[in-house]
Amino acid sequence: MATNIVWHEASVSKEDRREKNDHGSFCLWFTGLSGSGKSTLANALAKYLFEANVQTYVLDGDNVRHGLNKDLGFTDEDRKENIRRIGEVSKLFVDGGQIVVTAFISPFREDRQQVRDILNENEFFEIYVNCSLDECEKRDPKGLYKKARNNEIKHFTGIDSPYEAPVNPELVVNTESQSIQESVKTIVQFLEEKGLIKSGISNGI
Amino acid sequence: MATNIVWHEASVSKEDRREKNDHGSFCLWFTGLSGSGKSTLANALAKYLFEANVQTYVLDGDNVRHGLNKDLGFTDEDRKENIRRIGEVSKLFVDGGQIVVTAFISPFREDRQQVRDILNENEFFEIYVNCSLDECEKRDPKGLYKKARNNEIKHFTGIDSPYEAPVNPELVVNTESQSIQESVKTIVQFLEEKGLIKSGISNGI
Repeated sequence: MATNIVWHEASVSKEDRREKNDHGSFCLWFTGLSGSGKSTLANALAKYLFEANVQTYVLDGDNVRHGLNKDLGFTDEDRKENIRRIGEVSKLFVDGGQIVVTAFISPFREDRQQVRDILNENEFFEIYVNCSLDECEKRDPKGLYKKARNNEIKHFTGIDSPYEAPVNPELVVNTESQSIQESVKTIVQFLEEKGLIKSGISNGI
Repeated sequence: MATNIVWHEASVSKEDRREKNDHGSFCLWFTGLSGSGKSTLANALAKYLFEANVQTYVLDGDNVRHGLNKDLGFTDEDRKENIRRIGEVSKLFVDGGQIVVTAFISPFREDRQQVRDILNENEFFEIYVNCSLDECEKRDPKGLYKKARNNEIKHFTGIDSPYEAPVNPELVVNTESQSIQESVKTIVQFLEEKGLIKSGISNGI
């Protein structure tokens, strides 16, 4: 095997990787309230794309907050730095030919804009995972809203800290009126329409 | 197309990714003096593996210092944090099924050990890119040794800041006596012997 590989010194470009992977590389930036379903949706999307041989990776609280960003707290400055670093890591994954899906509340427009600014056109897609505060609070999968209402957590988005909804997101999915499966389909079809992945991939959803 | 893809909610594990990619995922941590050839070697290795359909990504000063770690300087504390973040990002790439090759001087044993500690067994391989200070200074590709000798740069590794060579690295390549091509071959053969990539890949070097 490997007889067609020959020696030559050079580095691999982002374009080389995209061509080899046979799909684009970009960041799908999910933003929305706690409990809106960002992480569930991101993982379901990644799983579906994985089965379709599309290189996809999810960045969320599970793999970032206890690792890269474990030195950061929840002050304004630290929240800003949290998003900045996630943006920079996303850029590395995009450079590496991957689709990176980020699942963070990322409540402030300015912070999301800064991530958009470090990526090229067609490398950053803001996806608003829309779900009413009432519904998120009803779901309360981690019991955080209850704690926030009891003042056990301070600066909780939607309770005593603002959430700035996207003004012109590339896509909106509504996890209150749509199932996760329907939301994944909406996103995969969006990627097909943009020519970022091969058409037909959404057929199995 | 894509007719064999069916809907199911779950997330993708590291093991799933390794199986799909048909190779292991791990970190090759290059350490060595400035000018020893770490970045050149890392890029040459990544290029060769890329041609062999092995998902590989290089982290080096070019894509880290001006991005993720642009807030860090060269104090002891910042150098430590620099390596910590690179280690954490490496862990994300490993989790994403990639081979990540890091090319940083990383002069301190303690810092390299900390990266080893956050990765699992067979996920961290320390590769000492060995080249004498004399030879590195002769090469001086970025003119940094000259500046360090003229006191224009402080705390420069090998001049007025120590380099702690690895005690038990998984592999040593000597870029003074070996060409880049020979060093790449040594590394690819090492990966084959460990069963981390398919055998035969080194045949083309």
